[in-house]
Amino acid sequence: MQSDQYYMSMAIRLARKGQYSTFPNPRVGCVLVRDNEILSSGWHERAGEGHAEVNALSTLPDSICAEGATAYVTLEPCSHQGKTPPCADALINAGVKRVVIGMQDPNPLVSGNGIQKLRDAGVEITCDVLRDEAYALNPGFIYRMAYNRPFIRCKMAMSLDGRTAMQSGESQWITGPAARTQVQRIRAASSAIVTGVSSVIYDNCSLTVRADQLNLENASVIAERQPMRVVLDSQLRIPLNAKILRQPGETVVVFCQADPDKLTELRHMGVTTVRLPSDSMGRVALSSLMEYLSDRDCNEVLLETGATLAGAFAEAGLIDEFVLFMAPVLLGHSARGLLNLPGVRNMADKMSLEIRDCRTVGDDLMLTARFKGNTE
Amino acid sequence: MQSDQYYMSMAIRLARKGQYSTFPNPRVGCVLVRDNEILSSGWHERAGEGHAEVNALSTLPDSICAEGATAYVTLEPCSHQGKTPPCADALINAGVKRVVIGMQDPNPLVSGNGIQKLRDAGVEITCDVLRDEAYALNPGFIYRMAYNRPFIRCKMAMSLDGRTAMQSGESQWITGPAARTQVQRIRAASSAIVTGVSSVIYDNCSLTVRADQLNLENASVIAERQPMRVVLDSQLRIPLNAKILRQPGETVVVFCQADPDKLTELRHMGVTTVRLPSDSMGRVALSSLMEYLSDRDCNEVLLETGATLAGAFAEAGLIDEFVLFMAPVLLGHSARGLLNLPGVRNMADKMSLEIRDCRTVGDDLMLTARFKGNTE
Repeated sequence: MQSDQYYMSMAIRLARKGQYSTFPNPRVGCVLVRDNEILSSGWHERAGEGHAEVNALSTLPDSICAEGATAYVTLEPCSHQGKTPPCADALINAGVKRVVIGMQDPNPLVSGNGIQKLRDAGVEITCDVLRDEAYALNPGFIYRMAYNRPFIRCKMAMSLDGRTAMQSGESQWITGPAARTQVQRIRAASSAIVTGVSSVIYDNCSLTVRADQLNLENASVIAERQPMRVVLDSQLRIPLNAKILRQPGETVVVFCQADPDKLTELRHMGVTTVRLPSDSMGRVALSSLMEYLSDRDCNEVLLETGATLAGAFAEAGLIDEFVLFMAPVLLGHSARGLLNLPGVRNMADKMSLEIRDCRTVGDDLMLTARFKGNTE
Repeated sequence: MQSDQYYMSMAIRLARKGQYSTFPNPRVGCVLVRDNEILSSGWHERAGEGHAEVNALSTLPDSICAEGATAYVTLEPCSHQGKTPPCADALINAGVKRVVIGMQDPNPLVSGNGIQKLRDAGVEITCDVLRDEAYALNPGFIYRMAYNRPFIRCKMAMSLDGRTAMQSGESQWITGPAARTQVQRIRAASSAIVTGVSSVIYDNCSLTVRADQLNLENASVIAERQPMRVVLDSQLRIPLNAKILRQPGETVVVFCQADPDKLTELRHMGVTTVRLPSDSMGRVALSSLMEYLSDRDCNEVLLETGATLAGAFAEAGLIDEFVLFMAPVLLGHSARGLLNLPGVRNMADKMSLEIRDCRTVGDDLMLTARFKGNTE
C-alpha cells in the first residue's frame, strides 16, 4: 500500500512537464488510483487544452472507469466554467470517491469552492499533501492570484567577490556554458523578462530563449514561445536599432514620457509601447509595472538587469528570489558591484536573506536565495 | 581481503587526530596488518614524541611481533636521526615485509631516501596510495619542505554581494556561530595567524583560539597551544594597549622602521619584534615575511586581514587557498569590497580560481577556492 505522498509526488513530477508551456495557467498534474493500482494520469500542457484531471480521465482505457478511484491532484480542482468545464464536476461525474489535493486554489476569493463542490457530492477530501512541493510548481501563478502581482526572480552573474563588470563598463560572460544553459531554462520558464534601457544601450542584449542553448530534448518546441521582453525606459531612450526590438515574440517598451515621432516609429516596428506613471525620481513606477505585468497574465517574471535597477527592485521589496551565478574569479575593488542599495547606509539596514539552494553548475556556483521571512 | 586503500584510509583517519597538535611536524598515521588482520596502529601526536610507525610498533601486544607484516604509512618513513631514531630502521628491525606509502617525503633533497633504505633491506614498497588524501593532511608541511614557504590560507567573511563592512568602517559579525566555530578550528590547525596593523587598530582583534568556541571534545587541550600571531606593521604604529599584545602565546610584530623607545617597550611587554626589509612601497616585503615564517617552522598560516593586505598577498601569488564565509545578507554598492586588486584593471587581468568545496555552515556558506592551475 503506497502512501498519499507517493502518488502525489508522481502527480508533481507530471505537473513539471508543463514547466515551459502552461502559461498563463498553472502547472498541474493528476494521478488516478484504485486499490493501489494506477488507472491513468495526466497533466496540463497548454492553456485552452485539457486540465490535468480531464486529461487523466480521458486517458482511462476503454474497459476501465474511475468509479471508486482516488484522484491525486497537485492543485485544487476548479469549480468554475472557464475555457474548459469545471474539473470538480468531471471528477464527480466519473464517480471518483476521494480527492487528495496538494494545495488549495491560491485565489482567496475562490479557494475552497472546488473542495466544497466535491464534498457536497460526497467525495472524501485530503488536503495539503506535499503542499510545499505543490506550491513550488507555481510561485508566479500563486502570487498573481493571491497578491495580484507576478513572482519576480532576479538573476545576476558575478565574481567570487561580488562584481559584475569592470569600472569601465567592460564586461563579458564570466560564467561558463553550464550556467548559461541554466539561465536559458529560467528564461523559458518565465512569462516575461524585464530589463532596463541601460542594459539595452550598453550590452545590446536580446533576452531571447535560444533552442540550441537549452540542452533539452524538446528545445525547439519550447523556444517557439518567447517570453515577453519588457524594457523600462522612462524617457524612451532606446536606440531604434537595438537588437531586442528585432527578436521573435513581443517586445514591450514601458515609458513615462516620449517623443511622439519615436513612439510612432516603434509602433510601426511592431513594438508594444506602454505609458506608465513615473515615481518621484522620474523613473517608471514599479508598482504600476507590477499591475501591468499582472494584467498581462505574467506569472514568473525574470529580472535581468544591472546594479541600479535590480537595487531599486530590491529596495522596493519586489524581488522574491535571487538566482546568483557565481564564477570563481576575482575582479577586485574597482570593478562594478552587484547591487546599488542607497537605502543601506548602516549595518542595521542590511537586507537579510536565506540560502534556499546552492549547487555547482560547471565550474560556477548557482545560489538561490530569498528574503528572510518569505516563507513561501 | 581488504584493499591497500582500505588500510591507508584508516591510517589517514589516524593522522587527522594530530590535526591540532603535531606542529611543526607533519600529521602521520600508521596501521600494521598481517594476513588481513590489524595488529596495531599509531599516529604522531606531538613533536619530540614517537612517530606514527614507532607508536604503532610499540603498541603491539606482547605476544605479537610485526614479522612479515605490512605497514601502511601516510608519509614516507624517515631515514635520518632526528629527535627520534629513523622510522625506516624501526620497521626493518621489526621484520616488516612490505610498506605501503601515501606519499613520498616532500623535501626533494631527501625524498626517496627512506624508501631506498627499506628496499635495500629487502622490504617491498608500494607508493602513492591515496596520495591526494595523504597530501591534504599536510599542505603546510609539504609547502615548507618543497618550496621553503608556508601554505597561506586566507579567510574572509563577506555578504552575498561580496562586502565586508560599511564604508564608514562599521562592521560586525555578519556570519553566524557555526561559521565562527569553523574559523576557530582553522586557527587551531594553523601554525601562525597573520594580520595587518590596520585590523589591529580598527578592530582591536585578539586572533586567539578560544576553547569555548571550538566545539570539540578536547577543546581545552587544543587551546593550550596558541598559534603565533604576526602583525605586519611597517612603521610600528601598533597601539601599546592593543588586545593582541596581551594574549597567551607569542605575538610577533614585524616592522621596517621604528621608534627605538617603542621597540624597547614592546620587548619589555614580551612581544617579539622583527625588522624585515620593505618593498618599493615601504610595506613589509612579503617575500621576506615568507622566509621568516618558514624559519619559524610555520606550516599552515592563516591570513585574517582586510581588503588591502589580502589583495597584496593575492597579487603577489601568495594565497594558496581562500576560505570565504558568505552570510546571506546584502550590503550594497557603497560597502567595503572583499579585495583591493590594483593590478586588475581589465577583464583580461581577472584572477581565476577553482571552487574546491562549498558547504553550508549554519545559515552561511563556506567556500574553499584555490587559484586555477594549483593542482596540489
